Amino acid sequence: MSETAQPPGTAQIGVTGLAVMGRNLARNFARNGYTVAVHNRTAAKTEELVSDFGDEGAFLPATTPEELVESLERPRRVLVMVKAGAPTDAVIEEFAPLLEKGDMIIDGGNAHFEDTRRREQALRERGIHFVGTGVSGGEEGALHGPSIMPGGSAESYDSLGPMLGKISAKAEDGTPCVTHVGPDGAGHFVKMVHNGIEYADMQLIGEAYQLLREVGGYSPAEIAGIFRTWNTGRLDSYLIEITAEVLAHTDAATGEPFVDVVLDQAEQKGTGRWTVQSALDLGVPVSGIAEAVFARAVSGHADLRKTSRHLAGPTPRKLSEDEAATFADQVEQALYASKIVAYTQGFHQIAVGSEQYGWNIDLGRIAAIWRAGCIIRAAFLDRVTRAYDAQPGMVSLLADQGFADETAAAQDDWRAVVATAVTNGVPTPGFAATLAYYDSLRAPRLPAALTQGQRDYFGAHTYHRTDRPGTFHTLWGGDRSETGS
Amino acid sequence: MSETAQPPGTAQIGVTGLAVMGRNLARNFARNGYTVAVHNRTAAKTEELVSDFGDEGAFLPATTPEELVESLERPRRVLVMVKAGAPTDAVIEEFAPLLEKGDMIIDGGNAHFEDTRRREQALRERGIHFVGTGVSGGEEGALHGPSIMPGGSAESYDSLGPMLGKISAKAEDGTPCVTHVGPDGAGHFVKMVHNGIEYADMQLIGEAYQLLREVGGYSPAEIAGIFRTWNTGRLDSYLIEITAEVLAHTDAATGEPFVDVVLDQAEQKGTGRWTVQSALDLGVPVSGIAEAVFARAVSGHADLRKTSRHLAGPTPRKLSEDEAATFADQVEQALYASKIVAYTQGFHQIAVGSEQYGWNIDLGRIAAIWRAGCIIRAAFLDRVTRAYDAQPGMVSLLADQGFADETAAAQDDWRAVVATAVTNGVPTPGFAATLAYYDSLRAPRLPAALTQGQRDYFGAHTYHRTDRPGTFHTLWGGDRSETGS
Repeated sequence: MSETAQPPGTAQIGVTGLAVMGRNLARNFARNGYTVAVHNRTAAKTEELVSDFGDEGAFLPATTPEELVESLERPRRVLVMVKAGAPTDAVIEEFAPLLEKGDMIIDGGNAHFEDTRRREQALRERGIHFVGTGVSGGEEGALHGPSIMPGGSAESYDSLGPMLGKISAKAEDGTPCVTHVGPDGAGHFVKMVHNGIEYADMQLIGEAYQLLREVGGYSPAEIAGIFRTWNTGRLDSYLIEITAEVLAHTDAATGEPFVDVVLDQAEQKGTGRWTVQSALDLGVPVSGIAEAVFARAVSGHADLRKTSRHLAGPTPRKLSEDEAATFADQVEQALYASKIVAYTQGFHQIAVGSEQYGWNIDLGRIAAIWRAGCIIRAAFLDRVTRAYDAQPGMVSLLADQGFADETAAAQDDWRAVVATAVTNGVPTPGFAATLAYYDSLRAPRLPAALTQGQRDYFGAHTYHRTDRPGTFHTLWGGDRSETGS
Repeated sequence: MSETAQPPGTAQIGVTGLAVMGRNLARNFARNGYTVAVHNRTAAKTEELVSDFGDEGAFLPATTPEELVESLERPRRVLVMVKAGAPTDAVIEEFAPLLEKGDMIIDGGNAHFEDTRRREQALRERGIHFVGTGVSGGEEGALHGPSIMPGGSAESYDSLGPMLGKISAKAEDGTPCVTHVGPDGAGHFVKMVHNGIEYADMQLIGEAYQLLREVGGYSPAEIAGIFRTWNTGRLDSYLIEITAEVLAHTDAATGEPFVDVVLDQAEQKGTGRWTVQSALDLGVPVSGIAEAVFARAVSGHADLRKTSRHLAGPTPRKLSEDEAATFADQVEQALYASKIVAYTQGFHQIAVGSEQYGWNIDLGRIAAIWRAGCIIRAAFLDRVTRAYDAQPGMVSLLADQGFADETAAAQDDWRAVVATAVTNGVPTPGFAATLAYYDSLRAPRLPAALTQGQRDYFGAHTYHRTDRPGTFHTLWGGDRSETGS
């Protein structure tokens, strides 16, 4: 089809920024029957999209922002797919003056939710809806159906929701993986926590692998087989599936297992870090996610690792074949229990963030839209959805009887695996942190009482008592009598 | 002495903000022979200081900022001791217009180092030295000798250093606990990390206590005795000393151990959180500090803890008296090794921060000025000082042979203690995180290779190889051949 054959003002959506994510989302809209106006700072990308994929649907190429805006029906919907930060602000400033009251700018990049809050407020004052939208699923998801997490006004979602529903992934029960997360930055916040959970998931899988390798004595190919088996059970998930693929892969150049030729320095793009920084602001303990972020950081400090090779450690005890098989089952229990805790922490962060920022987020709906399309998609999320559906105000995922029962069944093995890891010198920061969190929550008393005593001693920071209300201080430097009210 | 007897322009330092820290620092200067101009927003505090402590030295009370400034010799030194944040900015804006080129404003509050960087730059442009200064030691330290961490220009330190040296704590070898940390925000940055380390120290002590109590079966009074013994050895420190005091204390109202009547919900003022947030920005793994911050957060979530009481756990195995004594020795080893790692992480953060912000911080000098006056003062810091003196460019505290030898000697017990903790359901997030960090650094290979493989699979994020330089990508969705350069 010829783009000039289209009269102006007929496109349902415009996409500016045609790098791989923008291009694939534009194609996804077009494949679903929408007329899509497309624009890129350098026109070559626009032309390339139309020449390569023009037969997939109706694209209207635009060479300028003005042209893009003119080709859109009203209210206009402009999807911005450029780099987070200054480039996003620049593109918004380019388009906003061309738009009218009631038009929408959708930011589908990985913006920090605080930036989204700022932008939403500024554009709201100009009468424009700004919809910060999390999009998860990578390139493939963008094309075939991502999990979509839009924030912004309810009014904008009335207009956008059906379109996003069309291009989104569908859960097994057919539900589109999109929901109105909440006002202003809620969508990008939830996408951020999604990525934090993804970090934790990946770290826990890495620890399971390392244990199976170094304690279990299994080869990468054998571990791939173990992960494939796990993928048929409650751990069934995209990340477990691709882990098996990566571990089964042989490097063509050397004939070695692929995982052995990859440099073991993990990189990160920032959303995991943001998650932990936000959790600290919110006072939410997300130790499993934090350890995942730190584990990547440790791996990248080559100098530190080099000087530390000489540090003393134990010699891992090799297991017999039978023992190894039993151990593998224990590792599955530990991985599952740690995963429950990592999600508990992530959902706790969303709950507190929702409260703090007034977003009124429905946690069950969040679990539901993560069931397909995104990187952490998993059978597990169906369980989480049902848990929140059954108990919408649930204070913690561990308050669900089903998850409590599963951790109860897993805990002996979980403990055995962490004990084995520390005894054998295999680092399992994620398994250990999630178990410590679990035990901290269970504990009738925590040493926080001692902490408060110390703080009162050195800083007169006062303390509360268990037996009556009030704020107290002991005269530590004096006769140690108690003052208080 | 009468304050009007003093001619104007003779005070060596002015202090504005006479809450307990400001008042005690003012008294400390006066007791050391300086003439101190004092000012407070509400004049009553100024009068109270002069009437209560006027006989300690030469105070010049000022009722207005103008009066304070007029009473100072040149270059003027104005120490601001007000709340961090907006109040500090307000006071700076009040005083800066009254000052001349070369005068100094010293902020002795707990400012965020980024605020200090901003303020320093703004005042530098107006010709005024802004000296963000960490002060540790609480009220008592402020009066009798704190550890002082000034940032700002070298020129300002030429003028301030001798005065701060006088009022500071002195290490056992007589060295004043003050140094020019580095330019602009370096002082407040180092103070922040000091507090982060303090959080970790306190958390590790709390875990040791909890283990001795729940696994060792010791009473708080008995544990106080154990801590007193430890305090005669390599753990000799202020925090261990006061821990024994707190644990030995009996609540007068109930006759119960004091620690048992204190509500076990720890509070925090923010510097621990800042430390972890900054470490995340710097890419420095500070898991021991993070777990300490999270442990306080967990303790404060009463609702979460209440709903989690029912979670399944093991029954701690009670030890015999002999076993308990052995266990206590093992806990000392674990505590010491974890402490080494917590300090390793904190000093790593300072090293990377110094590099990042161009501060050129002398790590050995930082350890040296923490040897007395501050909350984390300890014999241990003399060891750290000597380690950095011997090897100034040391990439990690664990690169010191002495510390490496000690962790080597401790590691079996350290592992046994963590294994015992997880087996018995006693949360030891700090012990576990520091041990995992230690084992991560030692590890010849980390599962980060798998992480990179996963990232390349789902996001085409590429990876490096161990056997040749370049950036590579495997065509996971295609024939799985490798592309790269």
